[in-house]
Amino acid sequence: MAETIEKAVVVGLGAMGLGMARSLRRAGIPVTGVDIAPERREALGQPVAASAGEAAAGADLLILVVVNAAQVEDLLFGAEACLERLAPGAAVMVCSTVPPAYARELGRRLGDRGFLHLDAPISGGEAKAEEGAITVMASGSEAAFAKCRAALDAMASAVFRLGEESGQGSSMKVINQLLTGVHLCAAAEAMSLAAKLELDLQQVYEVITGSAGNSWMFENRMPRLIEGDTRPRSAIEIFVKDLGIVVDTAREQRFPVPLAAGALQQYLAAAGLGLGKLDDSTVARVYAALGGIDLPDSGK
Amino acid sequence: MAETIEKAVVVGLGAMGLGMARSLRRAGIPVTGVDIAPERREALGQPVAASAGEAAAGADLLILVVVNAAQVEDLLFGAEACLERLAPGAAVMVCSTVPPAYARELGRRLGDRGFLHLDAPISGGEAKAEEGAITVMASGSEAAFAKCRAALDAMASAVFRLGEESGQGSSMKVINQLLTGVHLCAAAEAMSLAAKLELDLQQVYEVITGSAGNSWMFENRMPRLIEGDTRPRSAIEIFVKDLGIVVDTAREQRFPVPLAAGALQQYLAAAGLGLGKLDDSTVARVYAALGGIDLPDSGK
Repeated sequence: MAETIEKAVVVGLGAMGLGMARSLRRAGIPVTGVDIAPERREALGQPVAASAGEAAAGADLLILVVVNAAQVEDLLFGAEACLERLAPGAAVMVCSTVPPAYARELGRRLGDRGFLHLDAPISGGEAKAEEGAITVMASGSEAAFAKCRAALDAMASAVFRLGEESGQGSSMKVINQLLTGVHLCAAAEAMSLAAKLELDLQQVYEVITGSAGNSWMFENRMPRLIEGDTRPRSAIEIFVKDLGIVVDTAREQRFPVPLAAGALQQYLAAAGLGLGKLDDSTVARVYAALGGIDLPDSGK
Repeated sequence: MAETIEKAVVVGLGAMGLGMARSLRRAGIPVTGVDIAPERREALGQPVAASAGEAAAGADLLILVVVNAAQVEDLLFGAEACLERLAPGAAVMVCSTVPPAYARELGRRLGDRGFLHLDAPISGGEAKAEEGAITVMASGSEAAFAKCRAALDAMASAVFRLGEESGQGSSMKVINQLLTGVHLCAAAEAMSLAAKLELDLQQVYEVITGSAGNSWMFENRMPRLIEGDTRPRSAIEIFVKDLGIVVDTAREQRFPVPLAAGALQQYLAAAGLGLGKLDDSTVARVYAALGGIDLPDSGK
């Protein structure tokens, strides 16, 4: 059963958050957008705010699409003190990729104060966010789902309901990020070796996308490598963070994840080479640097 | 331009070779099958032979679907001496996964003796072979393609023509095997960590196959892991061999491939655990053994 949303606030109008806020508005849900960058606020249009605390006053749904757990923590419990300003019994939907242990604990803390928590990591990229067609990996109570239902319907084409406990959504996101992070690094490793073997990279793309070697990440990211386009749709630093969460989570569980750990090293090397803010497909430049090859570079 | 094939011989009636031989026969191409195992010969039906040398007498197309370069070498130049018995100017289509350097050298040796070489690794699995719908990554001279054309049309739904030189087909196969080997190991790592995090594995499959974390190998192999079905469609030992070729090829090139090297260690561990002849999806049992989890086991 979907409950009415009186006032939603979306904090973080980045690649995903902007499209999500627009999708909510298209569905007729009143949305205030929050971002520290004026150009992101302008991209959404009024009502917007630079301060989350101010925007949160009286809101019954707070959607956080910020970078990491530290930002979530700061927004809710720090100087912005969003939590104190929300309407009583409001729902907090956290879409950021955060450690499952943090999500579990956050659910407890929010519950103690009478708020609902939806542990709701997202996947899909900028275009899907704009279309209202993202994927949400969500866990939370019946009441949390009911409060968020209309917003989920507006933003997502697939909502996986993974259980009643905070942390289950974030655990699934850890599994997805392990795979996406390793697959992109493997794509970079394979394409770079192909260049070393003097294969035609466009031909490699055609063969692999029609063969058992294909992955979603290979198909999505390798055109950028072939074109030498480094403009960030998703940056190297995102995988430094996300694979960091993967290996930290596995370490807590005393569970070895050698491929994820190896891939993380390659993203760290990319960041070390100064590529942290470039597109994540530039992890291939680590291979180029170490393996003595030139990759396409359009200068973009 | 396709030339007529008077007598084709398929050596190796395994998971791929049997279906390929049947596809050739459906297309009206006269085929003699060769396998040392009587039950594989019976599966194809007459004409078949236990000895490749005997079968090769007078053949104008020899198709090798054997395990590795050592078997190719032995069949052509060893005791079976197939090469001496072929019709003058016959074509040798090598579908086995072999090192690119070996394929290059083989092309030269065959050319010196007046034979045509098609460097033609394959992909697709048993069902595709049966349907005549495999993928072939092929390189070779115009004359080699012309001689093999009718056979390729009968066996394959996609023939990538990668150049005129022997070795180019095998180089592409190296790239494909790097990706399939790493993706399957990543799938095993992710699913095992999911089990450790107490996620429902069937639900993980549904979420991942609809998300950016998907790969062809994840989608194809993980149902076997979820069902605990270890019957080999393709065995652990195949990836021990194929990733061995990947890392050897990269080492010759002085090109580091940390993910492929890491994945190879996991397949070696699986073989070390005694799983070498089981399905390659059982690489997940390495993670189970080291990470303290139980994976599904149907006893099959």
